Amino acid sequence: MIEDKNQASTPLSELGEFGLIEHLTEQFEIKQKSTIKSIGDDAAVLDFKKKQIVVTTDMLVEGVHFDLSYVPLKHLGYKAVVVNLSDVYAMNAEATQVTVSIAVSNRFPLEALEALYEGIALAAKIYNVDVVGGDTTSSTSGLLISVTAIGQVKTEDVVYRNGAKPNDLLVVTGDLGGAYMGLQILEREKEVFKVNPNNQPDLDAYTYVMERQLKPEARKDIIKLLKDLEVKPTAMIDISDGLSSEILHICKASEVGCDLYEDKLPLDPQVISTCEEFKMDSTTVVLNGGEDYELLMTISQEDFPKIKANPNLTVIGYITEKNIGANLVTRGETKIPLQAQGWKNFDN
Amino acid sequence: MIEDKNQASTPLSELGEFGLIEHLTEQFEIKQKSTIKSIGDDAAVLDFKKKQIVVTTDMLVEGVHFDLSYVPLKHLGYKAVVVNLSDVYAMNAEATQVTVSIAVSNRFPLEALEALYEGIALAAKIYNVDVVGGDTTSSTSGLLISVTAIGQVKTEDVVYRNGAKPNDLLVVTGDLGGAYMGLQILEREKEVFKVNPNNQPDLDAYTYVMERQLKPEARKDIIKLLKDLEVKPTAMIDISDGLSSEILHICKASEVGCDLYEDKLPLDPQVISTCEEFKMDSTTVVLNGGEDYELLMTISQEDFPKIKANPNLTVIGYITEKNIGANLVTRGETKIPLQAQGWKNFDN
Repeated sequence: MIEDKNQASTPLSELGEFGLIEHLTEQFEIKQKSTIKSIGDDAAVLDFKKKQIVVTTDMLVEGVHFDLSYVPLKHLGYKAVVVNLSDVYAMNAEATQVTVSIAVSNRFPLEALEALYEGIALAAKIYNVDVVGGDTTSSTSGLLISVTAIGQVKTEDVVYRNGAKPNDLLVVTGDLGGAYMGLQILEREKEVFKVNPNNQPDLDAYTYVMERQLKPEARKDIIKLLKDLEVKPTAMIDISDGLSSEILHICKASEVGCDLYEDKLPLDPQVISTCEEFKMDSTTVVLNGGEDYELLMTISQEDFPKIKANPNLTVIGYITEKNIGANLVTRGETKIPLQAQGWKNFDN
Repeated sequence: MIEDKNQASTPLSELGEFGLIEHLTEQFEIKQKSTIKSIGDDAAVLDFKKKQIVVTTDMLVEGVHFDLSYVPLKHLGYKAVVVNLSDVYAMNAEATQVTVSIAVSNRFPLEALEALYEGIALAAKIYNVDVVGGDTTSSTSGLLISVTAIGQVKTEDVVYRNGAKPNDLLVVTGDLGGAYMGLQILEREKEVFKVNPNNQPDLDAYTYVMERQLKPEARKDIIKLLKDLEVKPTAMIDISDGLSSEILHICKASEVGCDLYEDKLPLDPQVISTCEEFKMDSTTVVLNGGEDYELLMTISQEDFPKIKANPNLTVIGYITEKNIGANLVTRGETKIPLQAQGWKNFDN
């Protein structure tokens, strides 16, 4: 798990900026029709004909969003792309291009950046997006990745956060809480490794939650599924900061309330067992854990027959009038107001 | 010149991510027709109808691209936007939107970010672009700004780097070398300040070169001018890394050579006098200094009558066959091959 950073080592200064960019980007193929001109000019040129485009950007910072003592660089590159694509899909759009900028200190050899770009290229291939630009620069400390993702969507298909209506169903994809529990495992193993670097951990029982943390996937499949089912959500958002925070975003933007049912929250058995091992409440983990990159959407009641048999979609509650507020209905049938924990990384 | 960092001080942790983003972005007005949805959803939504779009991204890193001991944060925000717009104009496109992501350590109070965003908002206003998204996150050290700029252009108007033909004229806007000499002044004053913090420097003789460094402008006006003159350059690039490097980019992409005339290089009198004071060769400064954000273009000979009287445009040489190479013709009429110095910040 802990990466060997002492493999081949080519200092970045040997290549210079242009050599480095050329070397790292030569593996990127162009497959999108909308990409007219990619890397190699002052800007990329794109042509979306009559479609609207969506643009989103996210930054991952070493020591804040990732810890290189247990995150392999290839996975990091993959994740940096995927978390941005997730935002594109959350608009019900098709992701088409990304730009990737990297700030990196001299302590990283070329081989480290190659691993990072391998992950970027793999995500681009799997999600069928073109890498059309970026910037590679040095930093005084650490690694930072800034990705901008672009997608296309027919005007009539865009889904915002603000369209939820009372009585709409609250629906989530996949299962939740895995990425956060994966992080707990990785942090624990890091501490074990510090004490005994020769310990060979047996992590077989945690493969799913660790993969949720290290190599999350964005729900491109859901955008296609919704199209096939002929369902257009009334509102949609991706779950990056925890379910609670995302529900509150939809409620605020749509000026509605909601009832969320604790007993409906989709949990993988490994999330449940890991929560038990760590003596954590799985509901708290789902509400505040974050980084699951599933989609949360609201769907009109009349579309319920179209989605009810689908294993990818779980109805977890429904939208109410604004004055009811956003509430969790517990297993004991108590109503508790939802609170956003989510992201707080400016705290010391 | 040296900023007082001990004014009002509100720790960032008081606001949290969403509060911070809301606070900092409420000043951004939307003015572009193509902006359908701006900040506040998973992604911005844009509609360019039949036009092509251009996308470019650049990152500015503290300690690498700027030194906060003499760069006011407002100017930094302004510059971070402008250097990206410059890339859009270099495609002969109209800049329309930007996204701005910031990674910032806890040592910055809210007021510092407000100053930064004031500069961003000012640039957006002056250049008529909408700020449609971004990310604000903490960093373990220092400040980093990543901007992505988007522009629109009619398909037939795009200008790439690869269209230069033998006998085309090599044309540059404005004057060169100022930004680099401004940096020399600022670095010198920083050293003086270290020795004697009470020294009140008299910088009147350097206002132009300092402004070129601290608050550069992008040549939006040139895109309009070229349209008015009915001139479409055969190739174009913005001058961020020094004239030499940019000429070599055009020559490489277009598979041509060029003769650049030393005695034609446009110099402001203040650049000349500052070079003399620092005992620097002004030609070297122009060729390798960088950060001037002027435009370098190649223009067909037949368009010469349209541009010859224009004070914004200077013919500095012409394009040759590739086998001639890219050369500087000195005042002494010696030919010297051009070399790219430019950006080398991976060196220690």
